[in-house]
Amino acid sequence: MTELKNDRFLRALKREPVDVTPVWIMRQAGRYLPEYRKTREKAGDFLNLCKTPELACEVTLQPLDRFDLDAAILFSDILTVPDAMGTPVEFREGEGPHITKPVRTKQDVESLIIPDPETELRYVMDGVRLIRNELNGRVPLIGFCGSPWTLATYMIEGHGSKDFVQPKRMLYENPELMHSLLEKISDSLIQYLNGQIAAGAQAVMIFDTWGGCLTSRDYIEFSLTYMEKIISALDRTHGDQYIPVIMFTKGGGQWLEAMAESGADALGLDWTINLADARSRVHDTVALQGNMDPAVLYTNPDRIRKEVQSILQSYGHGPGHVFNLGHGIHPGIDPENVAALVNAVHELSPEFHI
Amino acid sequence: MTELKNDRFLRALKREPVDVTPVWIMRQAGRYLPEYRKTREKAGDFLNLCKTPELACEVTLQPLDRFDLDAAILFSDILTVPDAMGTPVEFREGEGPHITKPVRTKQDVESLIIPDPETELRYVMDGVRLIRNELNGRVPLIGFCGSPWTLATYMIEGHGSKDFVQPKRMLYENPELMHSLLEKISDSLIQYLNGQIAAGAQAVMIFDTWGGCLTSRDYIEFSLTYMEKIISALDRTHGDQYIPVIMFTKGGGQWLEAMAESGADALGLDWTINLADARSRVHDTVALQGNMDPAVLYTNPDRIRKEVQSILQSYGHGPGHVFNLGHGIHPGIDPENVAALVNAVHELSPEFHI
Repeated sequence: MTELKNDRFLRALKREPVDVTPVWIMRQAGRYLPEYRKTREKAGDFLNLCKTPELACEVTLQPLDRFDLDAAILFSDILTVPDAMGTPVEFREGEGPHITKPVRTKQDVESLIIPDPETELRYVMDGVRLIRNELNGRVPLIGFCGSPWTLATYMIEGHGSKDFVQPKRMLYENPELMHSLLEKISDSLIQYLNGQIAAGAQAVMIFDTWGGCLTSRDYIEFSLTYMEKIISALDRTHGDQYIPVIMFTKGGGQWLEAMAESGADALGLDWTINLADARSRVHDTVALQGNMDPAVLYTNPDRIRKEVQSILQSYGHGPGHVFNLGHGIHPGIDPENVAALVNAVHELSPEFHI
Repeated sequence: MTELKNDRFLRALKREPVDVTPVWIMRQAGRYLPEYRKTREKAGDFLNLCKTPELACEVTLQPLDRFDLDAAILFSDILTVPDAMGTPVEFREGEGPHITKPVRTKQDVESLIIPDPETELRYVMDGVRLIRNELNGRVPLIGFCGSPWTLATYMIEGHGSKDFVQPKRMLYENPELMHSLLEKISDSLIQYLNGQIAAGAQAVMIFDTWGGCLTSRDYIEFSLTYMEKIISALDRTHGDQYIPVIMFTKGGGQWLEAMAESGADALGLDWTINLADARSRVHDTVALQGNMDPAVLYTNPDRIRKEVQSILQSYGHGPGHVFNLGHGIHPGIDPENVAALVNAVHELSPEFHI
C-alpha cells in the first residue's frame, strides 16, 4: 500500500498532536455538488450508484478535487446491509427508502441472512479497494455502517418515519424479538465493517441516526449495547495500522458519558452539543468530531469563518478534535461556502495546536 | 368563582404534598378520540374549531368525560397568535399549517401588530371563560402558548420544516432582525397569556417545540431568554390564587440547569430524559412534568402499567411530579389504552406520597 501523505485525520482520532485541525464533511459527496448530480443522473437509480464501484469511486473523489479535505468517506448508503440481509430496498424519487418486505415476526427475523461481505456486498468491498487505489495515499478513507437500531427502524417500519410506530411497538411489546433482530444485524455489521477494513478502510464510523428517539434506558439496551458489541469485534489492528472507530448518535447529547465508555476512539457530535462541555464530560478519553450547525452553510464566507472560529475555540487547545458538521450537508448549499468552511478550519486552527 | 374540587395538579406544580400523582396528557383533546373527530367534522376547518368558543369548549371537555384526568387544557393552537399578529394561518388538510405571507424583512417585522387579546384573540378568551364555567371547579384549566422561537420558525419559514432553513438563515445572518421579531412575539405572548389568566386559566404552559434544533449558545440567546422575559411579565397572582408556569422545550434535555433558573415553576420533559437524573440536576427547585414515550400507548394495558410504574419509580418519592407523556398523544392511539395509563398513575402512585 502507498504511504499516507496526510494523516492528520487519523492522528486526531487517536488524540495525537497535529499541525492543524483536520476537517471532513458528512455527506461531502452529495447533491450540493453539480458534478455529483451529473454522475447520479448517469447512474439512474440511487441504489445503482451505490452498487457500481466505478461510480461510487467517482463521487467519493469529487469533493476532494474541489476542497482541501483531510479524509474521504466511502460513497454508499446505510441500507445496503438490510438490502443484502433479505429486505430489499428501493429508493423512490423524492420519497426516501422503501422496504417492501418489512420485518415484523419471528419468522421474518429468522429468514434474514448474515451476508458475506465478499459475496452479497462485494460491490461495496470492490468500491473500497478501487477508492483506496485511486486515492493513492492522498488522505485516509473512512468506511461506515448504520447502527443496528437505526437499520432495525427501517427494516421494521419499511420506510423512514417520524414516530417509529412499528419499531417502538416491537421494542415495548416484544423486546426479545427486537433483541434477536438487533443481534442478527450486529453480526452482519461486524462482518461488513471487517470486510471494509480488510479491503482498505482506514477508519470506520457507525451512524446511529435514530438512537436519539429512544428513552435513556432503551438507548443503552437497544442501541449502545449493540454498537459496543460491534466495536469490540472489529479487526482494529490491520498490519501495522490501527483502525480508529467513530460513533455518532444524533440527538445523543445526554448520553456522552456512556458513549465514551463504548470502546469508540471518537464520538461524533450533533450541533446542539457545546464542544467545551462535551470535552469536559468525556475527560479527554475520546476524540470528538463535529459539530457546526449545517444551516450555517446557508449564510456567507464571513459568517461561516466566525462560526468555525467559535467552534475551534469551544473545543480549545490540544489534540483530539476533527472538524465536521453536526449532521449531513443539506442539498441546497453553495459549494463556495463549503470551500470557505474547509479553508477557515485550516487557517484558523494552527494556534490551537502550538 | 366556584371552588376547585381537585387541586392535585396545581399543588404538584407548586411542589406541595398530594395524595396521588396528578396526570394529564398533551393533546388529550385530539384526533385519537372519535367524539373529537365528530366535532372536528362539524367545525369543517381546523382553525374554525379553534375560533368557535363553543366548539373549543366542547372538545376541551371530551377527554374529561372519558378519563379521570387531573387537568383540562384549553383547546387551541399555538399559531392563533401569528394569525392575529398579521401572518394569517391556513391549515390545509393533511399538510399542516401554512403562512402565506412569511416574515423575511425588517418591513415585514415592523408591519406585525401586537394583538389585543380581548379584540383580535377574543375567541380564545371567550373559550377560556366558557370552559371555566362549564368545568365548574372539576379540575383546573391550563392556558398555553408557543414559545417565541417556535412561533418565529413558522412565521419565517411559512410552514413546518425539518431543517429550518429560513429561520436559521435569519438567526445567523441577521440576528438583530431575529431579535426584533422575537421581541414583538414575546410582547404579544405576554398580553395573550395574561389575557388567558384574567379570563380564568389557572396555570399556563409555554410550548417550545423547536428550541431543541438550536445550538446550546443559540438556545439561550434566541429561545430561553424570551421565555424568561414572558415568565417574568406574567400576572402570576390572580386574586388569592398563584398561577404556576410550565416550560417545555422538546429536545432540551441538555439544558435543564438553565431552564430551572428561568422562573418557571415546572419543566416539561420529553421521553429521552431520565426523570431521576433530571430531578437531581435541577435539585428539586422546580416541579417536573412528563415523560412517558407516547409510543408506549401503542401497546397494551399491562405494558402501559409497567411503564407507568417505572416512570413513577424514576421520579421517586415526594411532591413535584405531574405525570404526562413526553410529547403529544399520536392520533392512532386506542382510547382504552389512555384509560389504562390514567388509572395506572392514580393506582400506583399513592406509595410515592406517603
